[in-house]
Amino acid sequence: MATLIVHTQFSPKEDAVAINNAVKGLGADKKTLINILGHRNAAQRYQIKQAYAEIFQEDLVKRFESELSGDLEKAFYRWMLDPADRDAVLANVAIKKGSSEYHVIVEIACVLSPDELLAVRKAYQVRYKHSLEEDLASHTSGDLRKLLVGLVTSYRYSGEEIDAKLAEKEADILHDAIKDKKYNHDEVIRILSTRSKTQLMATFNRYKDDHGYSINKGLSDAPENDFTKALHATIECIYDHIKYYEKVLRNAMRRIGTDEDALTRVIVTRAEKDLKDIKELYYKENSVSTDGELAKETSGDYEQFLLTLLGKQD
Amino acid sequence: MATLIVHTQFSPKEDAVAINNAVKGLGADKKTLINILGHRNAAQRYQIKQAYAEIFQEDLVKRFESELSGDLEKAFYRWMLDPADRDAVLANVAIKKGSSEYHVIVEIACVLSPDELLAVRKAYQVRYKHSLEEDLASHTSGDLRKLLVGLVTSYRYSGEEIDAKLAEKEADILHDAIKDKKYNHDEVIRILSTRSKTQLMATFNRYKDDHGYSINKGLSDAPENDFTKALHATIECIYDHIKYYEKVLRNAMRRIGTDEDALTRVIVTRAEKDLKDIKELYYKENSVSTDGELAKETSGDYEQFLLTLLGKQD
Repeated sequence: MATLIVHTQFSPKEDAVAINNAVKGLGADKKTLINILGHRNAAQRYQIKQAYAEIFQEDLVKRFESELSGDLEKAFYRWMLDPADRDAVLANVAIKKGSSEYHVIVEIACVLSPDELLAVRKAYQVRYKHSLEEDLASHTSGDLRKLLVGLVTSYRYSGEEIDAKLAEKEADILHDAIKDKKYNHDEVIRILSTRSKTQLMATFNRYKDDHGYSINKGLSDAPENDFTKALHATIECIYDHIKYYEKVLRNAMRRIGTDEDALTRVIVTRAEKDLKDIKELYYKENSVSTDGELAKETSGDYEQFLLTLLGKQD
Repeated sequence: MATLIVHTQFSPKEDAVAINNAVKGLGADKKTLINILGHRNAAQRYQIKQAYAEIFQEDLVKRFESELSGDLEKAFYRWMLDPADRDAVLANVAIKKGSSEYHVIVEIACVLSPDELLAVRKAYQVRYKHSLEEDLASHTSGDLRKLLVGLVTSYRYSGEEIDAKLAEKEADILHDAIKDKKYNHDEVIRILSTRSKTQLMATFNRYKDDHGYSINKGLSDAPENDFTKALHATIECIYDHIKYYEKVLRNAMRRIGTDEDALTRVIVTRAEKDLKDIKELYYKENSVSTDGELAKETSGDYEQFLLTLLGKQD
């Protein structure tokens, strides 16, 4: 479930005028911006951007860029983009940053539905005049390229049918490859990048049933490198992305020097989807609330904005 | 340009009734079927199928399956399917037939526009409850799998921008790989499967300018195997698909024992697109008309149907 508290009483024009008042003059009134935009869903934000452009002949997102700065600006910028366009931006940033950020590509490719992933690929082309796979493939090489390009170019079947025999066979293929430490085996990449998520869940469950431990546990002996990290993220994102994101949030807040980019990414991309589930798991796993920990690790308007997206009552 | 002569005076209901009369009783009246359906475009055929289902509570394509046989049945069946669905069927047949038919996969992946290819992938899932890449990847292996899966999963950028420096650089990469006989180099596959067609044309032209011969000429020393055949077809389909199809038609008619499947495929899939250009090139290259040669190699209603699609005046 989502955490975003959406105000249903809503007029795009009134919002646009209120936002314009908030950014007029010296220093933006960030509280007002947070109060308004922290309670609007994607469709409403889209309407506000359109109303703003009509009334003030100006791009609202660009205006924010000149009025806001630092983590708050980045969070607002991400929040104001249409979801597919936002993911296209996140993917492009990740490609440019390189190996430390490849898990962002995996998230987009494996957590989104096949049609959502397609929408990101289309948005990417509109924005960058290249295809996503084109940029990704020219910035990577070897096994990592095979895996990542395979994942982003897949258009998985999204039906619920399961082929139990196939799950058994492919669980064996995965197990043999992992046992022989051939993590980069073509068949491993083929299975993970082409099978439907439902089929892969059946395969992973079969793996666990047959061997007494999960595939991720099986992978835990693998040496840590860019490829095996991406492989882990792939399986986690397909198997249980709530758990995956809980870990991303935890790592972002508990490491020395908060990882604001990761925090912003998870909260902004999941607030309208399943951030409530992620928060519940966070509490269960860590015995502290996401909100409480976030309040300790961040400050000011940036903190207030994220807490608002996390569902804080005004 | 298309060869199909479309009758604009058109009523789906009248057609459906006339078709029903033609298939009623003993032995279908094939002349009537050819006269009607050989002059209807894809949108009209779709409407006829709908009208037929409404009036006679029966699937017209299935009715044809029981009324017709052999090459004529196959040609009618292909002709009556919606274009994306037809390509999905052709791809599936090719996957099942294996290596001798992989060029059909290449055609679909490289001749269609990126959005048309996407429509085929969607149609494939509806029909087969699997993704196209999933079936393709599980029926192939090694370099051939890398190339074919890369091609069908790509969603190429379709803009007209060209990066001349990139074309130069990648023409060199392709040339070096071919010179060193590393036809299966990951970079060769990356370039061919991710770059936009416009960019690839620039790269191929640059290859020719820099080395005095075309990339396909460069490839002509490669040993003939499934992979190099698919590689040749890829370059031909991207570079000049009219020329490619002319060759397919020529080989289909000139070999010992006509290849009806190839004949039907080219004529049915291109009749509404560019079969006229293919015919013109055929005449230029062979000094005989496609129609004339076809009339020698085929017979009966099948011949008449193909000639109708080739634009023969009644």
